[in-house]
This record gives sequence, C-alpha cells and structure tokens, in this order.
Amino acid sequence: MTKPEDPNRVLIFDTTLRDGEQSPGISLNTQEKLEIAGQLARLGVDVIEAGFPITSPGDFEAVQAIARTVEGPVIAGLARTHVADIDAAWNAVKDAPRPRIHTFISTSDIHIEYQLQTTREDVKGQARAAVAHAKQYLDDVEFSPMDATRADVEFTAEVCQIAIDEGATTVNIPDTVGYTMPHEYSAFLTRLYELVPGLRDVVLSVHCHDDLGLAVANSFAGVRAGARQVECAINGIGERAGNASLEEIVMLLHTRQADIGLHTGVNTREIARTSRLVSRLTGYSVQPNKAIIGRNAFAHESGIHQDGVLKERTTYEIMDATTVGLEANSIVLGKHSGRHALQQALAELGFEVSGQTLNTAFKRFKEIADKKKQVTAMDLEALLTDELRGEVVGYQLEWFDVEASSRRPPHATVGIRTPEGEEVTGSFTGDGPVDAIFRAINAATGSEAKLREFRVDAVTGGQDALGETSVVLELGGVTGSGQGVSTDILEAAGRAYVRALSSAVRRQGVTAEAEAATEAAPEPISAP
Amino acid sequence: MTKPEDPNRVLIFDTTLRDGEQSPGISLNTQEKLEIAGQLARLGVDVIEAGFPITSPGDFEAVQAIARTVEGPVIAGLARTHVADIDAAWNAVKDAPRPRIHTFISTSDIHIEYQLQTTREDVKGQARAAVAHAKQYLDDVEFSPMDATRADVEFTAEVCQIAIDEGATTVNIPDTVGYTMPHEYSAFLTRLYELVPGLRDVVLSVHCHDDLGLAVANSFAGVRAGARQVECAINGIGERAGNASLEEIVMLLHTRQADIGLHTGVNTREIARTSRLVSRLTGYSVQPNKAIIGRNAFAHESGIHQDGVLKERTTYEIMDATTVGLEANSIVLGKHSGRHALQQALAELGFEVSGQTLNTAFKRFKEIADKKKQVTAMDLEALLTDELRGEVVGYQLEWFDVEASSRRPPHATVGIRTPEGEEVTGSFTGDGPVDAIFRAINAATGSEAKLREFRVDAVTGGQDALGETSVVLELGGVTGSGQGVSTDILEAAGRAYVRALSSAVRRQGVTAEAEAATEAAPEPISAP
Repeated sequence: MTKPEDPNRVLIFDTTLRDGEQSPGISLNTQEKLEIAGQLARLGVDVIEAGFPITSPGDFEAVQAIARTVEGPVIAGLARTHVADIDAAWNAVKDAPRPRIHTFISTSDIHIEYQLQTTREDVKGQARAAVAHAKQYLDDVEFSPMDATRADVEFTAEVCQIAIDEGATTVNIPDTVGYTMPHEYSAFLTRLYELVPGLRDVVLSVHCHDDLGLAVANSFAGVRAGARQVECAINGIGERAGNASLEEIVMLLHTRQADIGLHTGVNTREIARTSRLVSRLTGYSVQPNKAIIGRNAFAHESGIHQDGVLKERTTYEIMDATTVGLEANSIVLGKHSGRHALQQALAELGFEVSGQTLNTAFKRFKEIADKKKQVTAMDLEALLTDELRGEVVGYQLEWFDVEASSRRPPHATVGIRTPEGEEVTGSFTGDGPVDAIFRAINAATGSEAKLREFRVDAVTGGQDALGETSVVLELGGVTGSGQGVSTDILEAAGRAYVRALSSAVRRQGVTAEAEAATEAAPEPISAP
Repeated sequence: MTKPEDPNRVLIFDTTLRDGEQSPGISLNTQEKLEIAGQLARLGVDVIEAGFPITSPGDFEAVQAIARTVEGPVIAGLARTHVADIDAAWNAVKDAPRPRIHTFISTSDIHIEYQLQTTREDVKGQARAAVAHAKQYLDDVEFSPMDATRADVEFTAEVCQIAIDEGATTVNIPDTVGYTMPHEYSAFLTRLYELVPGLRDVVLSVHCHDDLGLAVANSFAGVRAGARQVECAINGIGERAGNASLEEIVMLLHTRQADIGLHTGVNTREIARTSRLVSRLTGYSVQPNKAIIGRNAFAHESGIHQDGVLKERTTYEIMDATTVGLEANSIVLGKHSGRHALQQALAELGFEVSGQTLNTAFKRFKEIADKKKQVTAMDLEALLTDELRGEVVGYQLEWFDVEASSRRPPHATVGIRTPEGEEVTGSFTGDGPVDAIFRAINAATGSEAKLREFRVDAVTGGQDALGETSVVLELGGVTGSGQGVSTDILEAAGRAYVRALSSAVRRQGVTAEAEAATEAAPEPISAP
C-alpha cells in the first residue's frame, strides 16, 4: 500500500483476527472469521491482518478465504523472517486485490538472547533476507522490529534502515509487552526519525499492548510523533491485556479532530455492531464501563448528569451515541412478519441472505417470535451469528429434559446427533441443572471434556430476552469454545456445550496435523 | 490531610463508593459498602470517598458507618457548595479519625450557563463560601472546579485561588466528561501552577474519566505535571465509561518506578482480591482482556510467548502475577474441614468472623463442600460476600421446583419467605426455566418487577464451579440489583432475583423520602 497523499489521514490496521485471535480460549472457524472480516470491511478499516498462515492449516485456509472474498481493505498475512513463513503468507493472501505480507523479528537483546538465541548480526541478516524475499512476490511489505520499545534505539534504527533499503513500505514499531509510556514512546519514534531519514518516505505504524492501561494513549502519542498507521483490535482484544481498542483510538481522533487535525476512513456508525459481533463470536464480554462500546458508555446515572443532558446535551456528553451506531433500533419484527420482511431486515443489517440459509434463519426466527413479542435488530444479529455457527459439522443437541429442585439433586437427559448422523442419549444427576446437562452430553458422546468456563448474557433487555451462553471446555489438553442462543438458558447452555465440544474435537485434529508439521520446524511460533 | 513530606509520594484517593457507585444498576447497601471500605483500607489507599451524604438517607448512613469503623485512610464525603450539603457531609464524616469534606462547583461556561444557570461571579462566591463553611468544621478540605478541562483556565485559576485563600488543602482538577488528552491536560495544569503559585503549597489532584480511553494516561500526565493525588476507582467503574482504574495507575507507577521515581502506599498484593470483591458486589464484570485484573492479563496463548516465558520470564512479562495477588491460592478446604479451619481460612483472607456469622458461614460452607471436592479461597470469598448480602432484611427464597425440556414449556414453583416471616408460594409456566422462576417469584410476592439484565459467571473454574448470578430489575421506575451464589444456576438466579426485588422495594422507600426532602431543594444532585 502506498503512503496516502493526505498527510492527515491515519490508516487503521485491524488485527482482531490475528493478535486478537491469539487470546486464550478464542477459537474462530473460517466462517466466523469471514463474517468478522466482512464486517471490518463495512466498518472501513484500511488493512485487515487476517491471520498468521504458517501456524496451522486452519489459519492458512481462513486467510486465503478472506483474501479471496472480502473486498475493500488490504489483506495482510503475518510471517516470521523464515522463507517458509513468507511463502505461506504469500500463498494465503495472493488472491486479494491488495495483498500485504507483514514480517517481523525481535530487536531487543532480551528477545535476541533468550527467545531467538542468536546475535544482532544474525537479526540484521534475517530482516534483510525476509523483506527481500517478500518483495519478490509483491510491493506491499510491512516490517516490525518486535519488542522495539525495550530494544536499543540505535540497533532498531539499523534494522529499520535495512528493511527500508530492501523495500518495506510500512515500518511498524511494536510495544510487544505493553511496557512503554506516551512520552517515552514518542521520544523513541522521534529518535528513529532522526536516525532513519528514509522513514519519512514510508508509513510509520504503531502497535501497542495494554498491560499498563496505556495502549490507546501510546498509540496516540505515536500518531502525534508522526505515525500514520495504528494497529488495533475491536474491543481491545489480543495477547494478555490486549491491543489498543480500535473503537477508542478512532473515536479519540474523531472527537478531537478539530484540535488534532487527523482523520481515519472508519464509518463510526458501524462500531457498535462490529463490537457486538466480535464479542459474540469470540465469547469475550465487554465490561459495562468500557469506553465507547460498554453498555454504560453513554448512560448517565446521577441526577444532575441526567438533568444536564436534558437541558443541553453537551453539558455531559462529548459524543453522540448515534455516531457509534447505538441509535434505538428501528427494526422490529413480530410473529406475523414474513420471510420477505426478515430478508429485508437482515439486508438492512448488512447480511445478504437467501436460499437455504434464509429458510433456516426464518425457521429459527419463527421459533423465537413465538416466545418473544418483538424481535429486534440485536436479536436478529444474535440469531444469525448463532446460525453461522450451526453450519459447522459437529454434534447437535436434539432434545433435553431437566428436573431441578432445591429439595433433590437435578437430573438431565439429552439426545445428541453425532457428526455421523446417529442419535445417542445420555443422562446424569449433577450438582446443578447446567452441570447435569453438560455431564449428560459427556455421557451421550462418551467424552471426558472438562468445563473451564461458563458465561451467560442476556442479548437484549426485558423479561423475554434471548439468553446467550458461552462455554470454554478442555478435552485432552485442547480447549474448545462455543456459544448458544435461546430464550431458554438451559437449551442455550446445552447448545454452547456441544459446539465447544465439536470445536475441541476439531482442534484435536488440527493439533495433530500441526505437530506432524512442526517436526520439520520444531521452533515455536511467535508474534508481536 | 497535610501534604506528604516526601515529594515523590502519590496519594491514592479511591472513589469506588462515590463515583463508582453512581454507575447505572449499582446499588450497594451499607453493609456492602463497609465491606468494600474495609478492603480498601487493607489495600492501603490514602483516601476513601465514601459517598455523597446529602443525596439520600442511605448514602448518609453508609458514609457515617464507614467513618465510624474503617481505620487507616482519610474518609471523605462529597458536597455541593450549599450549606446543607456541607453540613450533611460533616455530620457523616465527623466521627472518622481523619475526616475530609470534598466540595465542588463547575467552572466551565457550558455548565455555568446550562446546568447551574448562574454567572461566573456567583460561582466564585459559592466556592468561597463553601470552603470557608467547611473550614469551620475541619482542616482537611478538598475543592474541585467541576468540568475544569472544558473551562477557561484563567477563570478556573481565579476560583482555585479563592479556594486556597479560604484554606482548601487539596485542589482537584476534574476531567468530568473524559474529554481531555494527556498533552492538553498537562499544559492546563502547568498553566494553573503559573497562575496560582499557592497551588504548590497544597496537594494538586487529578480526576479523569475514560470516555476516550485516556483516563489513566491523563492521570499519569497530571502526575508528571506535578499532581500528587490521583482519584480513581477499582475496576475503573464510575459514570459512563468510568474513572481511571486504580489498579492501572498504581501498577503503572509501580512497574515504571525506576524511570518515574514516584510511589504510592498501596499494597499491590491486595489488588486482585479487591477487584473481585467490587466486581461481585456491584455485579459489574471485568472483561478478560482488562489490564492488570482481567483473567488473561497474565496469560500467554501464542506458542512463542509461552516458550519465551518458560525460557526467561521477562521476555514477555513486565509484571509478576504474584505482585497483584494472583498467586495460586494456598487455602483449600474440603468436606471434612471443621469450623476452626474455616475461621482460620477466613482470617487469612482478612475476614474476622465469629459467633452467629461464623455459624451461618459454616452451614453454607458445608452445603457447598458436599457438592464440591475442594473449596478454595475464591469460593470462600464468594460465599462470604453472599452471606453479607443475606443479612439484609427482605424476601428469602425458601425452595423451588423446576421442570424444563425442549419438548414443552418450562414450569417453576417457588416458596418465598416475606420480610414479615410469612411463607408464600407462586408458580409460572415461562419461556425458559429462569424466566419461569422469576415470574413465579413475582406471582408469589404479587410484584410487577421487570427483568432488565441477567448475568451468570462461574466464580471458579472447573465442572463443579460455583455459579454467581447478577440480576437487575425494575419495579415501578426504581431499579434494584442482586447477586446469588450456588452450584445450581437456577437457585443462584432465584436468590439474585429475590435480593434484587428486596433492594428495589427498599429503594422505593428511599426515593419516596428523598422526594419529600427535595421539595425544599428541588435542584437535582450532581457530581464531578
């Protein structure tokens, strides 16, 4: 990607599907990643880092599918400096209209010594070879000196100079461990500009982690120091405390544009929906007091705040909720709404659905509409993402019966359809009704899965809310996660559990493949 | 509180119980506030802002109880500039060994014009009178020019000068709407120091909101500009996107102490427990990727990160999990553990329990131990906070029976003990088993409560985890919240619902009183 002509344009590089997906317990399948990538394109991000293709066949397949179908943003694949990594990244992204290879190697002595177990000279050689190799395939190459903020600035500058000499078009300075502070990061970048004058001819990028709560502030300091690409993730997910939140850095630049003079290409009205989609598919909740997208971000409790807002909105509001897409939903369907109304409503939400998928969605919609007076846009989003998950081959919950009482232990019986199409049943008397269902599913499928985490959220307010459950379980050392939606919490829990189980079984297969593959390359896989 | 002699000591002013408690849906009773205040004292904060005494009899009572019993920190009460506010604050805090009155008035024209509907001259007069009146009662007076960051700096300086002339010992500069940026806030404070030389003789304080994700970075910029008090809240709760997170600003100063040279008096090992307690009692979850205290803040997913951490901890970790109290719990009790072992384990956790409370806790412990192999420190924390809630007079869930199935609508029957000691029963056939229980409780109690929110968390991992549920409901325009803990999710949900109902009924009473009180002072209640 060439440098934008407008010097005030800040590029948004979304790494939800790469660094975000590295979060513990998140395991998105290709269909879910495609759904998120499609929404990121609607959001208007400039670059989607779709994955790290060398790490697994599943990751490769997802990056390739996104490169082939998602229109608009640059599609990037991550690669270490190894030839095999860069080849895998290229093969995964090459069908995109605008592909990018993003390669990286650490420049901090602590990483060079303990992680890479090599020398500074070798790092320079690897950086040079990697960028040169990538440039044989395409023009748009990004280079990152990993752990740069804990590295010697002079050495990091040397490595960046090499990457630029070889043709890197973007140079990204990661704060890999979330250690830096705004003034320190700003000084580091300013010094890099002095040491590497050619940095002015490429796009300088920032990639900050939130371990000390400063990811957005550090990214912002970087932008003020001259960076024009921000690497960030929806809901701030990512390794440990995550990456800079896309929604925060975008709304900061948007809200303070008059003072800062910078802008992005993001359609802010898509922020809330993107946040909900990512939260739902990853099973990662957003806390109520999360900036921009938390349930309370625009809510006022204390008397005077409410009073002030009524008198003059700007007394206590610096942003309008509609700007981030939190307007009251205009779409409301009921039990008499037909297939065409559903299709239209889904189209308004950005889901183009027809044929068998529409039939399935309509059947589920009718089931819900029978129990719920009004089906809103948020309900439809939840149902449709639930259906997306359902299309993956795996176990299916066919039926269940539960008796629970404070006066005797709860008992559950379930019927499960196996991937082979057979119906198996199991029952269990447990400590609680959910526990009883989960163990009845284990009994039916003959699995030894152990529950690691269980969470329930009401998707929409009110007494007849849809319940959305998330399950993380462990099966023979592999974790699997799944979600389920229903007005019945026990049904939602059962659905989530069988999906988590299916995901763990699938991952066991992938892990076996990956283990076979890494016999050739026993080194562990890394990322900024 | 006089200014600390050590110029590098940063005071931590915790506003979890004041600004934090202003979050929508949070409704802590006096006992819960006392529990949090006691834990804040163990955490080692310098000041606890315990509430806003004029706003309700309940708030007054809680501040007074904390002032009378919690040892260590300064206990502050918030007050507008009105005589009645300051008198209420004084009466609430006067029994504390070290009381503080914190009074405030807006200096931004937008607030003066639309909110206060007065003039700059009047604001100066009110500020002067308020500080003078407070000083008649005590020495330790804090003054805040509300919405200062959107105010004219010269006018704000005039008002601060007046407050200092009248004897204010702390001057706090709130970014009430979360609008400022680190460099802007720093410049504002630097200019204030120039305009008000006397500011150097008092403690300058910062109070930042997180609407743009910059609360911690702005607070940090303030400290670097000379502030030596940071107002913050556990888990970053507070109005809208909340306040600066106490745990983030403290761990930032701690982790980068060698470079910044500042320190706090916080015992960082109490951070994790304090966070869990506040999350549990407020019903506000912490997202997995929240810095410092999120479930993943210290977790590594990608291969190389794990590998690096195994080779050398510092390759990917800048903080040690034990520093914030996340060490593996050493306390594990089982079904054969006795009353004395329980008492000792609770004492290790900082809960001094004896007599009837110990008996009740022991009974609940035995119930849980019968269902769970190992009862850990986190289980005990959950149980004990559950018991604390139980002591409030209200409805009690005596028993329930639920039948749920995918093949017919779920049916629930419940037995409820009313505050008057009578047992009433109700039953309902609902859309889901939780819905059926909730509506059966409505039927039994003859209430028309509507569910606003329902959430479930597993307190501890594993198949036999305790489930913790949170309910927010609305009853005649008043919201109530409640939590419940059990290995049975339906029992936990039922307990949470009856507590939320009890809380709403209690608040209806308080609102009626407050409405009567505000006929004399019809103006709405405000806070920075």
